Amino acid sequence: METAQKKAVVLLSGGLDSTTVLALALRQGFDVYALSFRYGQRHQIELERATAIANSFGVSHHIVVEIDLAQFGGSALTTSSAVPKHQSVEEIGNQIPITYVPARNTVFLALALAYAESLDCFDIFIGVNALDYSGYPDCRPEFIQSFQALANLATKATVSGIRRLQIHAPLIHLTKSQIISQGIELGVDYSMTTSCYDPDAIGRACGHCDACLLRLRGFAETSITDPADYQE
Amino acid sequence: METAQKKAVVLLSGGLDSTTVLALALRQGFDVYALSFRYGQRHQIELERATAIANSFGVSHHIVVEIDLAQFGGSALTTSSAVPKHQSVEEIGNQIPITYVPARNTVFLALALAYAESLDCFDIFIGVNALDYSGYPDCRPEFIQSFQALANLATKATVSGIRRLQIHAPLIHLTKSQIISQGIELGVDYSMTTSCYDPDAIGRACGHCDACLLRLRGFAETSITDPADYQE
Repeated sequence: METAQKKAVVLLSGGLDSTTVLALALRQGFDVYALSFRYGQRHQIELERATAIANSFGVSHHIVVEIDLAQFGGSALTTSSAVPKHQSVEEIGNQIPITYVPARNTVFLALALAYAESLDCFDIFIGVNALDYSGYPDCRPEFIQSFQALANLATKATVSGIRRLQIHAPLIHLTKSQIISQGIELGVDYSMTTSCYDPDAIGRACGHCDACLLRLRGFAETSITDPADYQE
Repeated sequence: METAQKKAVVLLSGGLDSTTVLALALRQGFDVYALSFRYGQRHQIELERATAIANSFGVSHHIVVEIDLAQFGGSALTTSSAVPKHQSVEEIGNQIPITYVPARNTVFLALALAYAESLDCFDIFIGVNALDYSGYPDCRPEFIQSFQALANLATKATVSGIRRLQIHAPLIHLTKSQIISQGIELGVDYSMTTSCYDPDAIGRACGHCDACLLRLRGFAETSITDPADYQE
């Protein structure tokens, strides 16, 4: 006998994946509470984009949480270490890159869980993708399943076992081009999104970091031109 | 053929439990990296105590991470809602109290995991206790086990399955008086610790919140006088 719209917390970075997930959650009828993080990332432009994207979708709840992961060190995304650049996707390699941020998705999901519990909400959306980031431990399906198991032990409402908390990762098995195709169908304006790890001062993408190369390949495979601004 | 001292991240609130855990980790020979949080708690005095305690134990690594859980609302510990007061432990009741902070231990452990991964460290200590806080979902043994399972999927070093991350919760099955007895043996100076949810401006404990009552009962059962400062 629920009449109110179901709430969902959506992790929104301002990138291609999380923006597509936001559109999906809205299409599924959720009342969306978007959550972004200022975590010491060098590409803080994504937070302006996340806010603009939330506004463009008419999402009235969007909070930005400050959490200084740079305090811990350990990633080129939060330190002055150079972001690796390549000429093509093939050069990226299979090692976990130095742009990996230690335990980032665990931290983001934990904070999403805290927000969800405060809202009496049982649905959390995250735009992780196992295919393009096979090197990231916290983008794997087994990681998401394990977090869901944890979430169902971690909060007040789950103690009784009656309410189940669900972690939605709808992109996890999709390729970048499949994600883009789905987003286009949902009306996502990808010119608003930013994927680059190392944009210039006015937010133009570098075109050569792993994130740019994967994004560009995804657009190439869909035969759609990437509407993002590039430096060259 | 490890010759270096093993590192451990120890969650240190400045309270009785976490200070005892710190002493235990040091006794076990770990090179301790203490981690505290300024999370919007009304009892920020605990952070001064945590720093003093870390110094008194000669712990050279102690960081305080700012994370504003008050942004999410939902707890008397982070809002202006009154902290419940009682005359005795018996009045506390079995409900989860409004001082519960949504998903707090999940957030703290996630950040401890990020710190540990940055340090190349595989041991995390937390002073949770299932007996005195049976109402808190995130103080139960099954929660800690589930977090350990997650941690072993969440980080780079665990992808191969060779390195195992361990969450140590050495107090989880102890009563408050057993914790105090163990701490006394380890040389803990409990006058430095603070447990009160609602201390006055100079840090004196109220004596009537749940945390004070459980602490006072623990000392009463050990026949040791609580050396903390109380308002009356």
